[in-house]
Amino acid sequence: MSSQLGVASRLPPLCHCQPEPAMASSAASGEEPAPLLPALLFFRLRMDDDFDAALRQRYRVLDFFVSGEPLPAFLAGAAALPDPPRAAVVMGGAAARVDAALLDAVPSLGFVFSTGAGVDHIDLAECARRGVAVANSGTVYSTDVADHAVGMIIDVLRRVSAAERFVRSGLWPAQGDYPLGTKLGGKRVGIIGLGNIGSLIAKRLEAFGCIIHYNSRRPRDSVPYKYFFNVHDLALESDVLVVACALNKDTRHIVNKDVLEALGKDGIIINIGRGANVDEAELIRALKEGRIAGAGLDVFENEPKVPAELFSMDNVVMTSHVAVFTSESRSDLWDTTIGSLEAFFSGKPLLRQVLPW
Amino acid sequence: MSSQLGVASRLPPLCHCQPEPAMASSAASGEEPAPLLPALLFFRLRMDDDFDAALRQRYRVLDFFVSGEPLPAFLAGAAALPDPPRAAVVMGGAAARVDAALLDAVPSLGFVFSTGAGVDHIDLAECARRGVAVANSGTVYSTDVADHAVGMIIDVLRRVSAAERFVRSGLWPAQGDYPLGTKLGGKRVGIIGLGNIGSLIAKRLEAFGCIIHYNSRRPRDSVPYKYFFNVHDLALESDVLVVACALNKDTRHIVNKDVLEALGKDGIIINIGRGANVDEAELIRALKEGRIAGAGLDVFENEPKVPAELFSMDNVVMTSHVAVFTSESRSDLWDTTIGSLEAFFSGKPLLRQVLPW
Repeated sequence: MSSQLGVASRLPPLCHCQPEPAMASSAASGEEPAPLLPALLFFRLRMDDDFDAALRQRYRVLDFFVSGEPLPAFLAGAAALPDPPRAAVVMGGAAARVDAALLDAVPSLGFVFSTGAGVDHIDLAECARRGVAVANSGTVYSTDVADHAVGMIIDVLRRVSAAERFVRSGLWPAQGDYPLGTKLGGKRVGIIGLGNIGSLIAKRLEAFGCIIHYNSRRPRDSVPYKYFFNVHDLALESDVLVVACALNKDTRHIVNKDVLEALGKDGIIINIGRGANVDEAELIRALKEGRIAGAGLDVFENEPKVPAELFSMDNVVMTSHVAVFTSESRSDLWDTTIGSLEAFFSGKPLLRQVLPW
Repeated sequence: MSSQLGVASRLPPLCHCQPEPAMASSAASGEEPAPLLPALLFFRLRMDDDFDAALRQRYRVLDFFVSGEPLPAFLAGAAALPDPPRAAVVMGGAAARVDAALLDAVPSLGFVFSTGAGVDHIDLAECARRGVAVANSGTVYSTDVADHAVGMIIDVLRRVSAAERFVRSGLWPAQGDYPLGTKLGGKRVGIIGLGNIGSLIAKRLEAFGCIIHYNSRRPRDSVPYKYFFNVHDLALESDVLVVACALNKDTRHIVNKDVLEALGKDGIIINIGRGANVDEAELIRALKEGRIAGAGLDVFENEPKVPAELFSMDNVVMTSHVAVFTSESRSDLWDTTIGSLEAFFSGKPLLRQVLPW
């Protein structure tokens, strides 16, 4: 750590950087300033010290969340620099949107890297029109998300978290046996979105004896699973419906009232995609009225807000958008982020480029 | 249901039977009593109405837990019947022990069927010496137990139940991100007991990219996993240690202080075997002192009592001995129980006979 911070401390000061406490002493010591590092627009929470240090060794990080400035002022300041930023790092979710306004404000941008698995916060068509390359974390998270999805299916069907509360409250001796769960084997699991994550979920569930169905934009020739052209028909033939698709205008509320109706009172829904893939208000109504059997939700429409009505439901398992995150995948993500930036700045091909659709 | 109850109501009354409310009216109607059904010793809680009715159609059920009698009086009463019971149904766990004393008290017994997956409550050597056949539920539960074990591994590594408490308490908006979990892929999972359940756990975990090691009485030629002659060495080479063996004198406290030490501070333990397979006091000490990373426990040494010290530990997932139970497996169990009794009473081979060891 100390050597990394030592390197970081040689970076020249920049109005939008995080404070560099060692800078004053470095300047005071009369050392030659290091060559100017490339500027990097940075829109991300959730950092760790090692990654922060590694990034600052390589770039002058213009950190929006640290700047405290309104977005237009922050972008104008960046664009007015003698060497304005050619690259941006953005996280997934609602933290920042890369849209026409942002691209207009900083026309020097040639590359956007998303540290999220999704790219619903990036206007891919606008980027393509302007020749701005977009890459993301690719499959770094995929196995973790798939594992979490399977864990949630088992949890909801077998009532693990609910039984956990029961035992932890000391109720077992007084109340006796906990109600029976439902078997995973033989269940028909309908996966919405058979991309990398969906395919990994399917592979895992095959080992449990599940029957896999799926819906996606196109049928896949390479898989033995039954394809459904629309989600309503998929839900009709599924005991468990798993949302594993990206969020875009076609998939917003892809699980709506009709789909929940088709899933039916013994069906459960798992969402490890994006909160807005599911009509949350309709989901809550269906759960309340017993029109579906349960839900496992890692994502919500207005994170971190979770509708309080869910808190008292024993047939719902909720986690705080953690399906993507393990210490191992985060470490892979940092490597991928820095590798992608280095590829862009050295003119090499971008391995995980996202194409517009 | 009504036709089944109608049949059951024609059974003659017996001192130890559950009350048969329809009996009086049946006798009053002057109908011929049905031929005497075979007597059946019954030591089991957790019944359901359908199974109860199906059993009483076929047998005069002498139900110990309903009798309210002390065990010696109950057994003496059964033995003194003109047609004493030739078969007994016992559940797993501590509800009743089939030992020399019980077999001495009811010498007419020729068959014991255990509805549990384990047979640690049956003295197999004593049964064999007297020519009493023993059968059990066989593999009815195996997939459910394996599924639950995998669910618990994901839960402990990925902190699902803990994140669930966090979200459910409404803490997400105030406290922000939940701490990172740990990846399942690539983990070395050591399975103690590679029987039917252990093998199913291994098969499932292979789909997650885990590396499987195992310990059992003998190495298995048919599996590609690495065999360890003792549990200590297995624990040394494992990130996750899964207890999936039967309970007997060799496996009591098979996970002891030394094994926990070998597993180490990043290791987790999963117990879906029997509570007494693990030295619970040592486990709690190791958890308290951070000498292991976490635990998933479906079984405990003194069920339904769970040591209160566990209740405040966020790295522990506890369920109330439910790994065996789903509505589907219970239905299979009832079929197996009745099928086994019919095989015994009609002199056919017992499909799931348990041999002494």
